Amino acid sequence: MVPVVCFVGKSNVGKTTFLERLLPELVRRGYRVGTIKHDAHGFSMDREGKDTWRHAQAGAATIAIASPQRVASIRTIDAEWPLEEVVSRFFWDEDIVLGEGYKRSHFPKIEVFRSDLADAPLCNDKDNVIALVTDTDTGLQVPHFGFHQVNDVASFLEERYLRDRKRPRVLVQLDGKKLPMKDFVQDFVAGGVVGMLSQLRGWKKARQVRVTITMGEEE
Amino acid sequence: MVPVVCFVGKSNVGKTTFLERLLPELVRRGYRVGTIKHDAHGFSMDREGKDTWRHAQAGAATIAIASPQRVASIRTIDAEWPLEEVVSRFFWDEDIVLGEGYKRSHFPKIEVFRSDLADAPLCNDKDNVIALVTDTDTGLQVPHFGFHQVNDVASFLEERYLRDRKRPRVLVQLDGKKLPMKDFVQDFVAGGVVGMLSQLRGWKKARQVRVTITMGEEE
Repeated sequence: MVPVVCFVGKSNVGKTTFLERLLPELVRRGYRVGTIKHDAHGFSMDREGKDTWRHAQAGAATIAIASPQRVASIRTIDAEWPLEEVVSRFFWDEDIVLGEGYKRSHFPKIEVFRSDLADAPLCNDKDNVIALVTDTDTGLQVPHFGFHQVNDVASFLEERYLRDRKRPRVLVQLDGKKLPMKDFVQDFVAGGVVGMLSQLRGWKKARQVRVTITMGEEE
Repeated sequence: MVPVVCFVGKSNVGKTTFLERLLPELVRRGYRVGTIKHDAHGFSMDREGKDTWRHAQAGAATIAIASPQRVASIRTIDAEWPLEEVVSRFFWDEDIVLGEGYKRSHFPKIEVFRSDLADAPLCNDKDNVIALVTDTDTGLQVPHFGFHQVNDVASFLEERYLRDRKRPRVLVQLDGKKLPMKDFVQDFVAGGVVGMLSQLRGWKKARQVRVTITMGEEE
């Protein structure tokens, strides 16, 4: 899976503002970057009366809209998706995905913290916090960056997540749920699948190979 | 791949209105339905100033937003995606997908046609038109339904696309492009992949099995 780093912190601490500066720097360095926004309160991405809104009102479970410049989808779900599911469904050719929110996920986090908003950061040493963007020293044993050290945060992410992408990575999903696999099992699955497919007419080398099998219904 | 039927016809002929009536009937019959809207002129699904809009402005290639009720994604693309790509990326557990537009695709089409708007339908016999929703006889050798025959159109779709989903269907994508495979090759790939994965700890039966392999960069 693509590396994911979540930017966490209190409301209005400046997470989006920092991301707004970090994103262009990563793009400038040649990376394709995705973002995920967690919105606990629900959101609407559609306007009343538009055709796609009317499809949703009439009961469409998933709606896609496509133009030459953009493709979008809106899916109604029964329960919150784990961040892993969001990432594996929507990001397949990004080099890194930056999340806003998702403090409770197990993914690595960078906390944005301002000393005038609270006495202490939200995260502690157990929260897989890998760095802070802050105006103060917090006592957490991870790198601290100032709000203006956008280049340094980009280099930190680059060094840590963007330089070592050499082995095949294998994701197996059973009805959307990830099947955990150790590295050597991943190598075995990648070898088996690619070995089989490469015998087929029409095969050619690709950066990403995806196989989706939908089972027939049982009699 | 999930069956796809496109509703085509002139602007303002009543495509969305007909879909608005057809969707609840298919949902009532127990199907999970997706829709795709083609918008040649581009669209915005986001509002200026919102966090996700700010991510896009700052250069994020793909943006997802997730709440407990809904997940959405917006992806910037270089060139229009074929309808097949839109379907295979965003619809994996729907029983049928209804498109609005996409007259030039090779997918089966239902034309919505009103005799007061034009002299003849957009589609001819070569356009893979499978039915019309219309107020007149067009001469096309396919079933004609009136605008109020919503139940009959639902039954027509059910009979034709929703009753015969018994064999495993296999989709192999190489960097997003479908590898065409005959049925027996699909059976061979499904058997090989499921045979291998079913040996792994953690395996369990699932309706959909997806394997995504991202190749390591070459040295």
